[in-house]
Amino acid sequence: MKHIHIIGIGTGNPEHVTIQAINAMNAADVVFLPVKGTGKEELAEIRRDICERYLTGVRILEFAVPQRQTAERTYPQSVDAWHGEIARIYEELIAGLPDDGSGAFLVWGDPSLYDSTIRIIERVRQEATLDFDYSVVPGITSIQALAASHKIPVNLVGKPVEITTGRRLAREGLTTVSTIVMLDGEQAFAKIDDPDAEIFWGAYLGTKDEIVRSGRLGDIAADILALRAEARQRHGWIMDIYLLRKGRDFEE
Amino acid sequence: MKHIHIIGIGTGNPEHVTIQAINAMNAADVVFLPVKGTGKEELAEIRRDICERYLTGVRILEFAVPQRQTAERTYPQSVDAWHGEIARIYEELIAGLPDDGSGAFLVWGDPSLYDSTIRIIERVRQEATLDFDYSVVPGITSIQALAASHKIPVNLVGKPVEITTGRRLAREGLTTVSTIVMLDGEQAFAKIDDPDAEIFWGAYLGTKDEIVRSGRLGDIAADILALRAEARQRHGWIMDIYLLRKGRDFEE
Ligand SMILES: C[S@@+](CC[C@H](N)C(=O)[O-])C[C@H]1O[C@@H](n2cnc3c(N)ncnc32)[C@H](O)[C@@H]1O
Ligand SMILES: C[S@@+](CC[C@H](N)C(=O)[O-])C[C@H]1O[C@@H](n2cnc3c(N)ncnc32)[C@H](O)[C@@H]1O
Repeated sequence: MKHIHIIGIGTGNPEHVTIQAINAMNAADVVFLPVKGTGKEELAEIRRDICERYLTGVRILEFAVPQRQTAERTYPQSVDAWHGEIARIYEELIAGLPDDGSGAFLVWGDPSLYDSTIRIIERVRQEATLDFDYSVVPGITSIQALAASHKIPVNLVGKPVEITTGRRLAREGLTTVSTIVMLDGEQAFAKIDDPDAEIFWGAYLGTKDEIVRSGRLGDIAADILALRAEARQRHGWIMDIYLLRKGRDFEE
Repeated sequence: MKHIHIIGIGTGNPEHVTIQAINAMNAADVVFLPVKGTGKEELAEIRRDICERYLTGVRILEFAVPQRQTAERTYPQSVDAWHGEIARIYEELIAGLPDDGSGAFLVWGDPSLYDSTIRIIERVRQEATLDFDYSVVPGITSIQALAASHKIPVNLVGKPVEITTGRRLAREGLTTVSTIVMLDGEQAFAKIDDPDAEIFWGAYLGTKDEIVRSGRLGDIAADILALRAEARQRHGWIMDIYLLRKGRDFEE
């Protein structure tokens, strides 16, 4: 049977890659590389760099990822349709593998966190007539990269942590002691009316362009907004993540 | 100045170790290894195995970690006192480093998640008269290991994820669509009155003894309880984690 490896590669630092990931990549006949061609050329470069460092004689096949269409669609509809399009591309890639051959998808960060490779591969298995199985190799997430750069635990002692999106934070406000916000295109932190919360922010984590800032939200939200806008302008894109924290260790 | 590396090593599989972790370990003069002597000899063995595989001529110094005293203390008090004791041990270890030397602490999983090495090192910096700095290297967490073994995303599309403890789940019930439960000594999942929730459970993840189970909570909670009790009895200890999920992708 054909086999697919879904491999987490960390979030920008080629040294985030695990030994398990290196072994899985090299066990594949082909590594499939998404080349978005959407101004995020640096991200494609990081994937290529990882292949150059660690692959020993594995074939690389680049493919283009379609853009998500949002016009006249709800968010779930647009994501669902987009996954359908990508599923057809994956199907073709897998169909092109030799019999009993194996392919690898390199996933940014960890495959389990706000990433749909697993979902889409499941969809290909259900919708297509291809016979294959797959396995997943964990990777360092942007949450770990953020915490390591700030040298902080994400949780207060014995307390919970919420991981959410910018969209939800904007809608629901800050409801837990430790909240990690990802996928924030609207800078929801700047709309939170909680000046005493602490923010630990990071962009381009793990890359040579990494920027981190931390402090009292009321003091530094405006600085982060300005810094973020400037960096985004300069690079043409940005990926950022932050932890918002209220309270202290050993407080009940 | 002396330097301390706090290095995440993943959760049982020696191949979870990243290239960054291997480089940081080998940059140290000494690797400090906690040897608990509390029946979790397998965990000490995994750390030793990692050192054997990846270290090239670095000295290893084993040390004993004290037990947390809980008698007549609230949870925060007992943790705080325990951290104080460990801080004194770390202080000694760091004091013993050569001038400008460096030491490494290997942390189970990732240093940012329900682990106090960062907190304790900060405490040593504040309380002791030693001069040193430190850096943190991220590692694969048990959350990533759980998700990879089950081949699942931890979040539903666009939805939040809560990470919490067994103690809190038992107290507060299931309040979010995706809840990851760690540090559960009381099998709180079995007390949740939500038979239609799905559970994705795993123990000894990454090790040769890994066990995983998933299904509808109402159908398999009792099986997991029995399996867990039997495994715990056999090994003398257990580490387990689970995801509880309500709802489906693309549901609003
Ligand atoms: C589609 S999600 C993928 C997350 C990824 N699977 C992970 O494990 O981190 C993309 C979001 O992750 C965060 N992110 C990923 N890489 C990042 C990086 N290098 N620096 C900062 N944030 C990052 C940002 O919040 C971004 O909006
Ligand atoms: C003190 S916390 C440390 C977590 C660790 N820093 C991490 O990143 O996963 C210990 C808890 O982590 C989870 N855990 C750690 N390693 C595990 C493993 N190999 N299998 C299952 N659960 C594990 C369990 O819930 C356990 O109670």
